[in-house]
Formats: sequence, structure tokens, C-alpha cells
Amino acid sequence: MKKKTTIYDIAKEVGLTAATVSRALNNNPKISEKTRKLVQETAQKMNYEQNTLAKALKSGKSYNVGVIVPRMDSNFFASVIRGIEEELYPKGYHVIVCQTHDQENLETGNINSLLNAQVDGILMSISNAKSKSNVFHNIAQKKVPLIFFDRKKEIPGVSSVTIDDFNGAYQATKHLIEQGCKRIAHLSNNRSLEIFKNRYLGYKQAIIDHGLEFDEDLVIETFSKVSEGRKTVKKLLKMKNPPDAIFSSSDFSALGAIQEIKDQGLSIPEDISVVGFSNEPFTKFMELSITSVDQSPIEMGRIAAKVFLKEVDSKTLNKESEKIVLQPELIIRDSSLKVKSEASA
Amino acid sequence: MKKKTTIYDIAKEVGLTAATVSRALNNNPKISEKTRKLVQETAQKMNYEQNTLAKALKSGKSYNVGVIVPRMDSNFFASVIRGIEEELYPKGYHVIVCQTHDQENLETGNINSLLNAQVDGILMSISNAKSKSNVFHNIAQKKVPLIFFDRKKEIPGVSSVTIDDFNGAYQATKHLIEQGCKRIAHLSNNRSLEIFKNRYLGYKQAIIDHGLEFDEDLVIETFSKVSEGRKTVKKLLKMKNPPDAIFSSSDFSALGAIQEIKDQGLSIPEDISVVGFSNEPFTKFMELSITSVDQSPIEMGRIAAKVFLKEVDSKTLNKESEKIVLQPELIIRDSSLKVKSEASA
Repeated sequence: MKKKTTIYDIAKEVGLTAATVSRALNNNPKISEKTRKLVQETAQKMNYEQNTLAKALKSGKSYNVGVIVPRMDSNFFASVIRGIEEELYPKGYHVIVCQTHDQENLETGNINSLLNAQVDGILMSISNAKSKSNVFHNIAQKKVPLIFFDRKKEIPGVSSVTIDDFNGAYQATKHLIEQGCKRIAHLSNNRSLEIFKNRYLGYKQAIIDHGLEFDEDLVIETFSKVSEGRKTVKKLLKMKNPPDAIFSSSDFSALGAIQEIKDQGLSIPEDISVVGFSNEPFTKFMELSITSVDQSPIEMGRIAAKVFLKEVDSKTLNKESEKIVLQPELIIRDSSLKVKSEASA
Repeated sequence: MKKKTTIYDIAKEVGLTAATVSRALNNNPKISEKTRKLVQETAQKMNYEQNTLAKALKSGKSYNVGVIVPRMDSNFFASVIRGIEEELYPKGYHVIVCQTHDQENLETGNINSLLNAQVDGILMSISNAKSKSNVFHNIAQKKVPLIFFDRKKEIPGVSSVTIDDFNGAYQATKHLIEQGCKRIAHLSNNRSLEIFKNRYLGYKQAIIDHGLEFDEDLVIETFSKVSEGRKTVKKLLKMKNPPDAIFSSSDFSALGAIQEIKDQGLSIPEDISVVGFSNEPFTKFMELSITSVDQSPIEMGRIAAKVFLKEVDSKTLNKESEKIVLQPELIIRDSSLKVKSEASA
């Protein structure tokens, strides 16, 4: 069997001291990016297997970072995770993920599991439930950096990366009004979560600012599921004065809405226009593509990871937290484009 | 503040001794399923917070199970994970997930990360690369149960849960032949992986069994991506004698194929029929729904989890491994249905 590669072999290969190679492999900040890259790539080529446990013991770190999301199979969260990985892998970290299915007991369990697994930090989007703050204080007590993304809770000292949901919803609703829609319904969701509250408020503000009548009956709280979107729209279409547009806080319920509208023999966007939220890939793939609000999830993940990297090596208490807010982008597609402007002609 | 719930409070509530409650909470096999359920549900109702670290130290277990998948954002893998969770959560386990992006170095890193995180077992689908066996032997050495699902490697003593890919591909190809297709192309993928090799072999066997000419030029190795499906079909349509059907080893490349075929002004299924593999949700959502092979992923996850539960409490060496093979189901939809049989009329 071939002899195992040691740091001395790597040092010889790259012409550096073993101490420098060791520092480079351990992502010591004193080592330049260029040297770190050279050493790590050479180590990989030479099939060097670092004893991660030994590394962890030496540094007091596990080089594991925990990520908690409501669900992994939404493109939005999967893309945030990809952004986190893209930022952390080159620094020697591994990313382990748990999902809460929007259940608070799973969320608590996941946090404890990750803490027991000795992660160096937790990046998370909170569950739909009104999560108790003491779980998060547990994390702070262990001096493990906690960073919220997308769905956050206001906790002193905890950083967050979110998007401007109010503005995303405002733009989406304004666009529907510009297309001539007058009775715009809103498929909302649990508004104890800031993101859904802000989408609702942005929608409402756009209605008011453009002189339309705000009708609370057109706002229905539902879940981010195809079947729920369908069910909700069935109800809306039974109204004496049904809506001529739907702004959904989720692409999944928007898709359900579209299926139901078509089944009832109505045309999209002529009879009813539909706009979703999150820019899930299927919104683009559909024959009738769906207008949606893009939240630049990869960017969000990358930034959350950068905040973690800054915090993990400076565990001072009462540190200043960062609140980063990204701007969303409305992507206009078939499901709402009635008026073709000169620009798009 | 309210007093914290103890096991004595739970014991009083359910009328059992504290020792029995403790055993039930720790999933001691001597406790009946009924009692375990009663105690755990009562504990949850009473907001009992078990000190998982203390539990772990007592039992020598972490109650964390690691799952490794190529990607989490495919519905197939996300559903397998859901099946695993559904089976393991009621037994007190938490599931933590890593993705490999089909890269061998990430796969190795993920395995080490999970082992350092002290997981009680690893359930995984191997990466596209020809993963080295020694990584898996590492796991075996630590006596941590390893179970493969979907994409496996033949390793003595390691159990696996897979589907009969050969049969799935055979049924899909046979269906296309019954629809009158004569030149069926196959979008294959890395055939060093058994699943893709078996899909190729099933396709080939169906062609031969039905007296059609097998043409190797109609088999193209590509990736499971929309853009790759598009690119590959562009090439196929330039052939002097282009195909009249496409059987893709992936729904994602099938979708790309459909987009390209439409862009060239051809009709589906009349000019070219298309069948995918995996039954991703979008195949059903499309206006032109896509025929695909369902792999019952939730069932696969549940069974893999059951195999883990059996193995985790009986860490004997040279144990007999289980090789469980599930049968896939062809779901016929618009993209391939030319001949409406009486049954479907």
C-alpha cells in the first residue's frame, strides 16, 4: 500500500516550510489567499487526508456549520444553502443541514442536535411557528454565532440577512395595477412571520397609493402549497364580485391558483392575472410562465456565510449585529403581461 | 417563570414509575411501543425538554443520523429524506443532511464531518464519481451503520435500498414502442453509476426484445440538467435519420429536450415522444405533462431508515446485509401518449 501523504511531503512539493503548510491547511488568516489555495490544491492532488478531528481539537473548532431551513426542496432555500456552501467550502468548512417542516418542536430538536454535534455556527431561517426566544438564547450562551436569513426574529446581538419583502410586494402589486387590474386579491400566509406580514403591507400600500379600494375580503391566509392555492382561489371565484388579479406570497400557491383558474375555463392573464413570489424555477419552465419576485437566494446565502466568518473568529459579547437587507427584483412573465409596452415589443 | 417539567411530573401524569418514563424517553427496547408513545406524547404536551447531551452520554448515542445526497433540491432526494425523517423522528432521532454536488472530495469531507459530529449512522446515495471504497471502510471501522439508497456501491456487509432501474427503463421503452416509435434515442448519464447503467441496459433490452434495430448513435451520455438535455437533443435532431422518441434517464434533461423540440417547431408526442425518469413534480404540472418513471422515494427513505434502526442496535460484525429492491411505476402522460387505448379513453 502507498505511504500516506504527510504535510512534509506537501511542504517539499510546494517549497514551503511544514509549519506554513499546516497553517495554510488550517485556514490561518496569517497565510495569504494565494498560498492557502496552492497548498490546499496540492494537498488534494496528493490525496492528503487531514485528520479533521485532530484539526478540530487543535483549533477548538469542528469546521462544521449547521444550517436550518423550513424545507430543503424549495429552490429558494436550496439556493441559499448553495450560496452558503460556495462561501464556506473554500475556507475548509462543511455544511450540515436540518429541516423543520415549519414545526417548532423539530426546530428546537434540530438546534440541540446541531449544538451537540459541536457546530461552529448556526445559520437559520425560522419556522412558521412563533418560535420561543429561549431556544435562541441557548445558542448565544454557548457563544456559537447565530445568523438569521430570510425569516428572522428580532434578538439583540443576532445578525440577519433578509430581502425587502415590502418593496417586492409593492412592485408586484403596482405592476398588476399598471396592467389595468382593479380588484387584486392577495394569497397571504402566517403573518406572525415578518416576511409574510411585510408582503401583505407592501401589497396594501400599493393598493392605497394608486387610489384603489382596499378590500380586506380579498386577503386570504393560506399555506405555501399548490393544493392550498387551488382551494383558496376556488373560494375567491365564488365571490359576488370576484378578483381580476391574484398576488400570491408564494409561487406554489400561485401555481395552484393558475390550475384552478384554467380548470374553470378562465383565461390568464386576460380574465385573471397572477403573480407569485420567490422565482422558483418552475415559474420559468411553465408554458404559461409565471411572473414572480426574485430574492437572489445565492447572494443571500453568500452574505450570511460572510457574516458568520466575521463573527466566528471574534466571539466578543455584546458585539454589534448586522442587519443586511437585499433588494428583490420583479420578473415579469406571461401570467400577468396584458399590456405589452414598447420596451418589450 | 414556570417550573421546568421533570420525569417525575410525567411519571405522575401517566401513572408509571420514573424509571419506566426514563426508559421510554430513551427508546429502551424493553418498553412497549404503546407505553413509549404515551410517555413521549405526554412529555411533549408538558413541554418536557430532555437534555439530549445527557441522554447521549448515557446511551452512548447522539440520536443524530446523517444523510448524504448528491443534491437536496431534487424532489426525488428531498422525498427520500422526508421518508427517512418520518420513520426516525418518532424514535427520537434527528436527521442532518449534507450534499455532495456529485463531487468526490465533498463526499469524503461530508462523511468525515458526520463521523466527527458523532452520528449514529449514515444513510447515503453516492456521488457520480467513482467514489473510493476506503472512505466507506472508515465508516465500517467506526462501527457506524452505513446504508445505501438509490445510488450504491457493492461493499460486503453494507445494506442497500434501490429500485429496479432496469425494469423501469424497460417499461418506459416498451411503452414508446407500443405507441409506434421506431427510432428511440436514450439520454444516458455517467454509466459508472449502476442506476444509469441499468437504465441503459433496460432500454437496450426492450429495443432488442421488440425486434427494433439497436443503434448506439442514438445513445448519448449527458448530465441531469435542463440545459444539457437541450444541447443533446439539438445534436440528435441534426442527424440524417433523427429519432422519433426520446427516453431520458432524467426528468431534467427530458424537460430540456421538450423545450428544444418545441423551439424547432416540432410537435410532441406526434413528431417526437418524450419520457423522463424520476417523476419530479414539474412533470405533472406542465401543460404538456411529461411521462415519467416513479421511484416511490418516500417508501425508499422509510425502508432505508428501518434497515438503519435494525442495524444500530445490533452492531455485530459480518452481519448479513440486506439488498432491498423496489419496483418502479411508469406514469403515462401527454408527452408520449399518441395511441389512446380503450382503457384511457
